[in-house]
Amino acid sequence: MISIQARDSGSSARAGILHLPHGDVATPAFMPVGTAATVKAVRQDDLEGLGFKLILGNTYHLYLRPGMEVIRSYGGLHRFAAWNGNILTDSGGFQIFSLARLQKVSSEGVRFRSHIDGSQHSFTPEQVVDIQCDFGSDVQMALDVCSSFGIDRREAEEAERITAEWAVRAYQRWRAAAADYQGMLFGIVQGNFFEDLRRRSAERICALDFPGLALGGLSVGEPFSQFCDTLAYSAALLPESKPRYLMGIGTPDFILEAVRNGIDMFDCVFPTRAARNGTAFTHAGRIQLKNACHSGVDRPIEDECRCPACRRYSRGYIRHLFKSAEILGPVLTTLHNLFFLKSFTDLVRQSIVEDRFSQFARSYAPWYNGNGARTVAET
Amino acid sequence: MISIQARDSGSSARAGILHLPHGDVATPAFMPVGTAATVKAVRQDDLEGLGFKLILGNTYHLYLRPGMEVIRSYGGLHRFAAWNGNILTDSGGFQIFSLARLQKVSSEGVRFRSHIDGSQHSFTPEQVVDIQCDFGSDVQMALDVCSSFGIDRREAEEAERITAEWAVRAYQRWRAAAADYQGMLFGIVQGNFFEDLRRRSAERICALDFPGLALGGLSVGEPFSQFCDTLAYSAALLPESKPRYLMGIGTPDFILEAVRNGIDMFDCVFPTRAARNGTAFTHAGRIQLKNACHSGVDRPIEDECRCPACRRYSRGYIRHLFKSAEILGPVLTTLHNLFFLKSFTDLVRQSIVEDRFSQFARSYAPWYNGNGARTVAET
Repeated sequence: MISIQARDSGSSARAGILHLPHGDVATPAFMPVGTAATVKAVRQDDLEGLGFKLILGNTYHLYLRPGMEVIRSYGGLHRFAAWNGNILTDSGGFQIFSLARLQKVSSEGVRFRSHIDGSQHSFTPEQVVDIQCDFGSDVQMALDVCSSFGIDRREAEEAERITAEWAVRAYQRWRAAAADYQGMLFGIVQGNFFEDLRRRSAERICALDFPGLALGGLSVGEPFSQFCDTLAYSAALLPESKPRYLMGIGTPDFILEAVRNGIDMFDCVFPTRAARNGTAFTHAGRIQLKNACHSGVDRPIEDECRCPACRRYSRGYIRHLFKSAEILGPVLTTLHNLFFLKSFTDLVRQSIVEDRFSQFARSYAPWYNGNGARTVAET
Repeated sequence: MISIQARDSGSSARAGILHLPHGDVATPAFMPVGTAATVKAVRQDDLEGLGFKLILGNTYHLYLRPGMEVIRSYGGLHRFAAWNGNILTDSGGFQIFSLARLQKVSSEGVRFRSHIDGSQHSFTPEQVVDIQCDFGSDVQMALDVCSSFGIDRREAEEAERITAEWAVRAYQRWRAAAADYQGMLFGIVQGNFFEDLRRRSAERICALDFPGLALGGLSVGEPFSQFCDTLAYSAALLPESKPRYLMGIGTPDFILEAVRNGIDMFDCVFPTRAARNGTAFTHAGRIQLKNACHSGVDRPIEDECRCPACRRYSRGYIRHLFKSAEILGPVLTTLHNLFFLKSFTDLVRQSIVEDRFSQFARSYAPWYNGNGARTVAET
């Protein structure tokens, strides 16, 4: 399912091609998040124009709205969202533990109330596979229990245990559906920030023959150094032969650390959410377009950038759009940030192919200030 | 400034070409409203793609934000907004009387407080010309006093009198600026819904040699029949040789009545505002995309429509976007409504060229139900 085309000699970084039902995807790949079957503020033809071949959808959100009846009536998400590229859907686990009003987790499954209307629902690992089969997801994720940063060992152990049990049930359900469904099921390794629990989780999850593997429960508020440490020992537990997905990261610093450890895929709402709030990514760090220093500035967000925003519009104009609460502000900045991430991951890939990844990574030092998420360059 | 290319034999409808500093514009023309130097929810390249050559900006809004210093630093609105087509700016009169906290109207000018921060400002007819010269507007409007529907004759007379005085001062200021400024100044005929006041206003305004003339104070809440009557006797007062602009209309019924009476240009926020609220224009009437009847419907807003929304997305998907408060809902529906108005005015023009305007207008009967603004077709 993944062909490795090049390896970096100074790290575990690798460049590959992911083979999926709706076409090949070059890796390392950033996947834009389209929670409700839309990557917020951009059109599907823009995503195509930017070169994205694989986007995310959120099972929890789509199950609640528009609901399975509507999605089934379209024969799946691709036709519903008018998107002919690949779609990866998460298992809903993360949303249930962060967004919904969680009611009960048991070995059987999870019971929760909708954040939209308070209605009661439950997910079992089997149901979540069925839902994602109905979506026609090119990659689906097994239901897992997400544990927070800072919990005690006993709680982390329990989350790991249930995740492992659910993985077996999800795997069996997916195997049973194979006749009618072309998509892949990925298992998720949990274990919080305990090395032995990560090891135990990886052993249990990798014992099943999932076509791909994910690391969950990282980038959930821990210090950057702890993220790096946990990532390093966890990624090393995953088999070389399969695609590796690190859930929930999307800034150059986190991406470079992921790729350095052999990660192939990653997603994050931050680049698009930040864009809607006026934060633009540049190769020299982040800038906040609402700041007064951009008033009247007749230069693009980033000089030389070829994105649809930078080719035409100035910082001063985009700042005005944000100050006036105009939709075009989020639209243009989202286009820029997505273009940035596509270009950035293309450059990462090229550096691996040319065996100069570590040197390349060093040029993103401005993104590593503080914990990496706080860098602001007002250039 | 306008070349008339064809006239309808059964009405005053005419097809022409408006010659403006940033290029020719085919008439009758609908002008999308870009209040804050952005037509809400669409990109400038989309407007170009849809075929618009002339958009509006609002002097009141742009004067307050980003303010004259920023706009002057860009050398005008065209560079600021990255728009190479024509821009018409209104005089700010309508906004001062509807949106700002009006403080005082005198023969000298008008004093008001900003709706953004309460700061105090004043406009004189001369200042408003200067502001629009700094904008580099291709067409600018003289400051006028907008009177409401239902006021008494004395009030309407006073508004007409001040408008006429201001028109003289604006005209002189514009003439004096001619060496450095290529744009046109249009005079505005007021007079409320009193035929003799309209006549008096038209005489006074047309006595000045404005390059174009507008009818103001129509479509402000009056019954459709009263709109039609007032339009008919007011439009007949305007010279044949100049472009005629009816301010504030943008639905097929009002446009057809305007064109029938020899109007060349019109603008309205309604088509784009309605789009952001889920209302789509079709040749058979308006539809509200949020309605349950569109759930799961795998058909475009309008069959055969070639707009960027209809070529790719279904009603059911767009309904889902609105129900989920996703930005893409307003974006796609705005594109559709603007495409609709461009196509519609192109068809109107063609029907004039082929001398079958009245027959064409009859095919829009569904838009004339009730007072024309209430038609909803749930097809």
